[in-house]
Amino acid sequence: MDEREVHPSVAETAEDIAEMEIRGAATIADAATRALEAQAAASEAQTPEAFESEIRRAARRLLDTRPTAVSLPNSLRYVLRRTEGETVDALRESAIAGAQEFRDCLDSAQADLGAIGANRLRDGDTVLFHCNSTDVMACIRAAREQGKSIGAIVKETRPRRQGHITAKQLRDLDVPVTLIVDGAAGRYLDDADHVFVGADSVTADGSVVNKIGTRQLAVTARERDTPMVVAAQTVKLDPTTLTGQTVEIEMRDEHEVIERAEREEIGTITVENPAFDVTPPRYIDAIVTERGQFPPESIVFLMRELFGEQARQPWEE
Amino acid sequence: MDEREVHPSVAETAEDIAEMEIRGAATIADAATRALEAQAAASEAQTPEAFESEIRRAARRLLDTRPTAVSLPNSLRYVLRRTEGETVDALRESAIAGAQEFRDCLDSAQADLGAIGANRLRDGDTVLFHCNSTDVMACIRAAREQGKSIGAIVKETRPRRQGHITAKQLRDLDVPVTLIVDGAAGRYLDDADHVFVGADSVTADGSVVNKIGTRQLAVTARERDTPMVVAAQTVKLDPTTLTGQTVEIEMRDEHEVIERAEREEIGTITVENPAFDVTPPRYIDAIVTERGQFPPESIVFLMRELFGEQARQPWEE
Amino acid sequence: MDEREVHPSVAETAEDIAEMEIRGAATIADAATRALEAQAAASEAQTPEAFESEIRRAARRLLDTRPTAVSLPNSLRYVLRRTEGETVDALRESAIAGAQEFRDCLDSAQADLGAIGANRLRDGDTVLFHCNSTDVMACIRAAREQGKSIGAIVKETRPRRQGHITAKQLRDLDVPVTLIVDGAAGRYLDDADHVFVGADSVTADGSVVNKIGTRQLAVTARERDTPMVVAAQTVKLDPTTLTGQTVEIEMRDEHEVIERAEREEIGTITVENPAFDVTPPRYIDAIVTERGQFPPESIVFLMRELFGEQARQPWEE
Amino acid sequence: MDEREVHPSVAETAEDIAEMEIRGAATIADAATRALEAQAAASEAQTPEAFESEIRRAARRLLDTRPTAVSLPNSLRYVLRRTEGETVDALRESAIAGAQEFRDCLDSAQADLGAIGANRLRDGDTVLFHCNSTDVMACIRAAREQGKSIGAIVKETRPRRQGHITAKQLRDLDVPVTLIVDGAAGRYLDDADHVFVGADSVTADGSVVNKIGTRQLAVTARERDTPMVVAAQTVKLDPTTLTGQTVEIEMRDEHEVIERAEREEIGTITVENPAFDVTPPRYIDAIVTERGQFPPESIVFLMRELFGEQARQPWEE
Amino acid sequence: MDEREVHPSVAETAEDIAEMEIRGAATIADAATRALEAQAAASEAQTPEAFESEIRRAARRLLDTRPTAVSLPNSLRYVLRRTEGETVDALRESAIAGAQEFRDCLDSAQADLGAIGANRLRDGDTVLFHCNSTDVMACIRAAREQGKSIGAIVKETRPRRQGHITAKQLRDLDVPVTLIVDGAAGRYLDDADHVFVGADSVTADGSVVNKIGTRQLAVTARERDTPMVVAAQTVKLDPTTLTGQTVEIEMRDEHEVIERAEREEIGTITVENPAFDVTPPRYIDAIVTERGQFPPESIVFLMRELFGEQARQPWEE
Amino acid sequence: MDEREVHPSVAETAEDIAEMEIRGAATIADAATRALEAQAAASEAQTPEAFESEIRRAARRLLDTRPTAVSLPNSLRYVLRRTEGETVDALRESAIAGAQEFRDCLDSAQADLGAIGANRLRDGDTVLFHCNSTDVMACIRAAREQGKSIGAIVKETRPRRQGHITAKQLRDLDVPVTLIVDGAAGRYLDDADHVFVGADSVTADGSVVNKIGTRQLAVTARERDTPMVVAAQTVKLDPTTLTGQTVEIEMRDEHEVIERAEREEIGTITVENPAFDVTPPRYIDAIVTERGQFPPESIVFLMRELFGEQARQPWEE
Repeated sequence: MDEREVHPSVAETAEDIAEMEIRGAATIADAATRALEAQAAASEAQTPEAFESEIRRAARRLLDTRPTAVSLPNSLRYVLRRTEGETVDALRESAIAGAQEFRDCLDSAQADLGAIGANRLRDGDTVLFHCNSTDVMACIRAAREQGKSIGAIVKETRPRRQGHITAKQLRDLDVPVTLIVDGAAGRYLDDADHVFVGADSVTADGSVVNKIGTRQLAVTARERDTPMVVAAQTVKLDPTTLTGQTVEIEMRDEHEVIERAEREEIGTITVENPAFDVTPPRYIDAIVTERGQFPPESIVFLMRELFGEQARQPWEE
Repeated sequence: MDEREVHPSVAETAEDIAEMEIRGAATIADAATRALEAQAAASEAQTPEAFESEIRRAARRLLDTRPTAVSLPNSLRYVLRRTEGETVDALRESAIAGAQEFRDCLDSAQADLGAIGANRLRDGDTVLFHCNSTDVMACIRAAREQGKSIGAIVKETRPRRQGHITAKQLRDLDVPVTLIVDGAAGRYLDDADHVFVGADSVTADGSVVNKIGTRQLAVTARERDTPMVVAAQTVKLDPTTLTGQTVEIEMRDEHEVIERAEREEIGTITVENPAFDVTPPRYIDAIVTERGQFPPESIVFLMRELFGEQARQPWEE
Repeated sequence: MDEREVHPSVAETAEDIAEMEIRGAATIADAATRALEAQAAASEAQTPEAFESEIRRAARRLLDTRPTAVSLPNSLRYVLRRTEGETVDALRESAIAGAQEFRDCLDSAQADLGAIGANRLRDGDTVLFHCNSTDVMACIRAAREQGKSIGAIVKETRPRRQGHITAKQLRDLDVPVTLIVDGAAGRYLDDADHVFVGADSVTADGSVVNKIGTRQLAVTARERDTPMVVAAQTVKLDPTTLTGQTVEIEMRDEHEVIERAEREEIGTITVENPAFDVTPPRYIDAIVTERGQFPPESIVFLMRELFGEQARQPWEE
Repeated sequence: MDEREVHPSVAETAEDIAEMEIRGAATIADAATRALEAQAAASEAQTPEAFESEIRRAARRLLDTRPTAVSLPNSLRYVLRRTEGETVDALRESAIAGAQEFRDCLDSAQADLGAIGANRLRDGDTVLFHCNSTDVMACIRAAREQGKSIGAIVKETRPRRQGHITAKQLRDLDVPVTLIVDGAAGRYLDDADHVFVGADSVTADGSVVNKIGTRQLAVTARERDTPMVVAAQTVKLDPTTLTGQTVEIEMRDEHEVIERAEREEIGTITVENPAFDVTPPRYIDAIVTERGQFPPESIVFLMRELFGEQARQPWEE
Repeated sequence: MDEREVHPSVAETAEDIAEMEIRGAATIADAATRALEAQAAASEAQTPEAFESEIRRAARRLLDTRPTAVSLPNSLRYVLRRTEGETVDALRESAIAGAQEFRDCLDSAQADLGAIGANRLRDGDTVLFHCNSTDVMACIRAAREQGKSIGAIVKETRPRRQGHITAKQLRDLDVPVTLIVDGAAGRYLDDADHVFVGADSVTADGSVVNKIGTRQLAVTARERDTPMVVAAQTVKLDPTTLTGQTVEIEMRDEHEVIERAEREEIGTITVENPAFDVTPPRYIDAIVTERGQFPPESIVFLMRELFGEQARQPWEE
Repeated sequence: MDEREVHPSVAETAEDIAEMEIRGAATIADAATRALEAQAAASEAQTPEAFESEIRRAARRLLDTRPTAVSLPNSLRYVLRRTEGETVDALRESAIAGAQEFRDCLDSAQADLGAIGANRLRDGDTVLFHCNSTDVMACIRAAREQGKSIGAIVKETRPRRQGHITAKQLRDLDVPVTLIVDGAAGRYLDDADHVFVGADSVTADGSVVNKIGTRQLAVTARERDTPMVVAAQTVKLDPTTLTGQTVEIEMRDEHEVIERAEREEIGTITVENPAFDVTPPRYIDAIVTERGQFPPESIVFLMRELFGEQARQPWEE
């Protein structure tokens, strides 16, 4: 393997992430650490410096594919921080161990988070859902396993209607579901004891970036005094925001919003399709992670505990 | 014509309203007064009592078709209150005059309302729209005729996406339109100087019944300090609420929310599709009518001015 | 009867009001107009001026007994405003007619108010109650007569625990009651669809003076988004507040708060026992009167309609 | 006098208003009606039509000088509405009578308003003041005449520091004054029982246009739960807003904000000096007028009572 | 002592806690650690495993008596975490040392907390009190010892009127007291500079569980902008809530609310008597502990510092 | 040097701070550590105890000059905590090293803070400024260096108009500035994307002490939903507030508010000129420090990390 090249597994993973064949925060993080592990295992570097340079290059290659998916840098950062040693072998071993350790954590994180979120629910409670989140589903699954009866109100969540996926998953857990359009949430919040949403990422000032519509739902839930819970594994915490970085909101294709035929007919208008919005901490009652639940205003200290103060990134030369 | 029967035109109109061939607040009111007028013109009643009984019966027939459309009782009430006199001829004449007068008011109401609503807009303002309202469109049309440049953000307004109609109508007025999903309103309120919505009806306690999603939008608009304006002709004021009556919210067919194929696949869930919601006056900055603009808390006095205290309905025996 | 004296019935009524043998807004108003009527019927005045002077003196005598009971001046004002004529006989007749008319209105007011308040309630609703109000009870009685099933949460309402009276009256209407201490209202508001309270008086700026604890309840009900309804006959509207007069809050005996034995033991502390507090209009959703329901911000116009602008009082010389 | 000309007194008054030698809402209204009266008295019109045309022309001439001073059109409207008759003499007499009547109202308005505002104050209360308002001062003067002891906190009110005038006037009423900078109001609201401000104009949606800084003060007063009172004679009500007209905010000279020497030194920056801002009704507890006190949401009905629905202005041809 | 038994002191203490002869967070914790210490001292275990099993059994026995008193598991957890060693003697010594250390902390905690709370008070401040809390009283005592003059408004705190105890304790500290009914707090908050309350427990999301009425008081205090302070030793922090556990609210006997005679007379109603309610962090300004003062949103990190992430409890096998 | 004396450099620095020749949080801290360093270098103490006593005395001397400037105790505390060792030489070396280390941190703090604050700004954003803060200016400078185009609205900030300094500094950074009076902020917040202010000190409960006017601005910014950012180096965190100490607000000379001539003319009024006010954490979105950005509710943990729990001060005997 030439020094300027990366291991085929890194190249492939990078391509799959870029083309969204690999997607979802946990899946991306799992794949990225496996690629790094493959790189470390196969490295033919002769010096520690060469090894470190190689592994950093692999990390950068993976990172460049989708810089906005926060689980990607978080997983790479985890492995690189643990890649230590004075010989190539020591470095290799620690890199491999770090990658495996990260995946072990990841494996148990969802179950741990689910148990904590389920503890907030009482038998007979009704939950209102926005979009589809595996972390949220883990909470409901755990509550069901605890034998709790749960009712569900599900917003369809335009434009992609992930609410339909949520509805099916809940149905499969024997949770009775009422499906509504997004605009009806104001009316159905009266019937809900909690709102549960996932997160795309969580920032140092306690804001939650999540599927478009979350902020409006959170504001209305507060007006109705319905607790708003965010379920998010710590891999969703974005340490770059510790130093004030803002989160770029992805604008998606207009055809998610309007069918092509109608688009042509309607002519010269603009269609905007932001994927996410940002909810400030004052509208969120708790963030449930695998490490416990937190008021959003305190999450910065969990972030510092996990990632440090983050001056220089470990993949920089 | 037998005494127990109503004029064919009344019967036909009643049927058309029931089947929703005649729809929209103003169209219904126009048709109902034409039918009453036809009844009065053709009446063969021999005594004033017989005439009055006949016309009340016609009113009740019309009213029964769709008791929740507030413009229907309002228009009938208007004509019956003006049906006065001591002879059959005098009664007939006053009934016909009352019906015509009502339609004259109706004809000018939208233009008058439009001019008032347009006065709230400044050149260069951006308006956020929910659903499709002819009263709201009258405001924008008037603003355009005043030469004002207006920008538009249009919520698609699930489930029936009347926002697409609004978008086309605005495009035809040379108003640049940005179309968004309903959940994105929280984000786009920052770019809006006003929210304009119509009303299905307005109640004595200042609440506004309008297309599902309005309440949530109003709450979020207040949180962002964007003025919320309701455009509603006085024919939308519901005088039965003066005596505390609440408004029944229509539940519509689930297939507006979910396609049949998907419905079958998704199986045993409930789909609820309420047509309207109720926004309390504290989230509304002004109600624009053809009689001027009003804070919602004061609309009860316009209602009393127009309809009195409403103990007994004029169509009761 | 010497010119400086009043009719014995006036003197007696005045005494009974002062000693609170006659109490309750409607009872006081009823008695006061009967006394004025007796005065008018028995008057031996020889000139219209003498008659008017006599009747004004009687009014003042009654008024002086309990100036803070708003129904007292309101009833007197009603009669004196209708005491018109150019002869003693004409004045006498109009005074008597005015007094009777007032009592007729009073008789039907509670039933009319009850019907309107009942209309706000739906079958199966739960109402939270503070203190005991005949106007509120009229609403519940009417709702029960409409066949509606109503649930009740009743605050005991310290210090005099009028909630116990409310509880018994509701029990007699077959309304299932849950009795709680005042501090528990925050918790039980979640189970309530409405809060219903009466009023001691209502002021021109839309504030409601009512049993101590009302303001706190109203603030908490808004925080929970539970509608706050005030049931108050128009005889509770205080026209002196049109000109900015503030309402004096009665301080009652400390032994309503603390038993005598404990008082002595506890020694040198102060016990304060204000009877009422003032709730601003922004925490009230509707005021239900016999003349319809009103947002509190509009009640000033009902007051003006009923009492005029109130520069000079009719009992002044 | 040629038909196209106006009476010299009209021309002079117009000039004095334009040059702000005549200023202050009441002073302008007084002068304008005197000028109209002079025009009517001196008119040599031969036909009723000619007289009416002449008086309308005079009104327009006056109006053009300062269209944003709401008392000017209000006073002219008052006189023109009362100018009725079938002969020139009848018209002249009614115009003169209307002008005098208006000034009589104006004369007593401030005292009446003052008495009402004073009634809201209790002995020993502390009031916080912004800017300088003769209507507000009338309230304090009346309270002092009622023998009430009042304390004062006065914001200096940049840029023109009219607070200094207020401070002197209060001192002359033996009211102890604490003068503070505008930014300190947040801190001193804790010591105030009321905020009293005047108004430049009041709009149909219940908003108050007043000296820059009022909105911010009102928002902060609400946050501290200190009642916010606006003292404004009805001549400040702006009937054009009944039909949705917005109020243009005057931008004043930058040298009120920054001294010339410093301006030159500071160089290429912009200095903006808006004279007024707009406070929405939800931050105002009461508007005190000479006709009573009103919640701001109800003021539209006082406006309609005084000015009608205002389609066409009486000075239009 | 048979292996399955616990030391008599443990059995007795458990019984006394169960029967509430031992009550109050600190007293319970003190007794529980003494019992554990006795168990450790008297243990005849032959192996470290036997000792550990014994001590865990004793802890469970104590814990089972009153699982909702948070100081009980907290004190047991403290001792068990410090019970370390490879021999029975080492284990015994460390258990005894841990128990003594815990009680030393407990002894100084109230004084430390009192000093911190007192620092928030200024000379001449007035404090409003709800219920009776030794932690709150420690703050006032410390403030008095600092020579500060403090005024007091005390809510009687139905149903058990612990406000009377607070009133007496304050009187003994020469603090002038005004005693009021619970409903009057809304009125008297205007005269208070702070609200001070204790806590039954504090949860990881920053909520405070305290005597029924606290939430309503906190909401009203925020509306009046009066700072709300919770005084709570760290022994009140509930680490089980780190993992989302909710707090069960004790329902107490109805005869605390209503006398037996009246209960019989009133008949078929329900009386509910919840002991506590839950106040969310957004209505609390500071939690004062012996370790410093904290915004409620940050208390989760103090909890983690003191108790760790709390997966498995030390008394589980 | 006699034992009771301090080094001339300490005496001089103390005097310069007292007379405000040395001012500004960072400048004071720099000077104070240099003085301590001089004292340590020149010490002729013969025993470790003597050295420690001497250095504590020097610290107290410096501290007494201006106890409210939080950077002064913070810098002294930093050095004294690092003054460790068993010999005079070891103590001396560690004191000198501590002083130098502190200044190194101080040197880089502003640049680090600026970079973090700049990251919150996007190209084209407009910022509203109150007063003049070097920490805020560091953020803007960094944003400009990142090539971002920034717009500015600057409040003049009475009484001392430090806004003029801010305006000039922004102008020098090629930032287009609009200067307004303080009262106009309510109006111009609509045009701002952020508010940036500095801090005099930050307390453990998350409150920010800053130039008078900050609280009112923060409340209004929240009402408009404009994010409020505080830029404050950690040297501004006040560790004494961990134990509940409140912050004394300096009252400054009245002649900053009113010119002497006018003061004399206006006579017997009071002029109050508080330098600062206190903004509670709920109105602040983020505190930007050189150690990252934090929600204000979490800053207590940064304070504990940096300063410990702070029972006894290191300069006490």
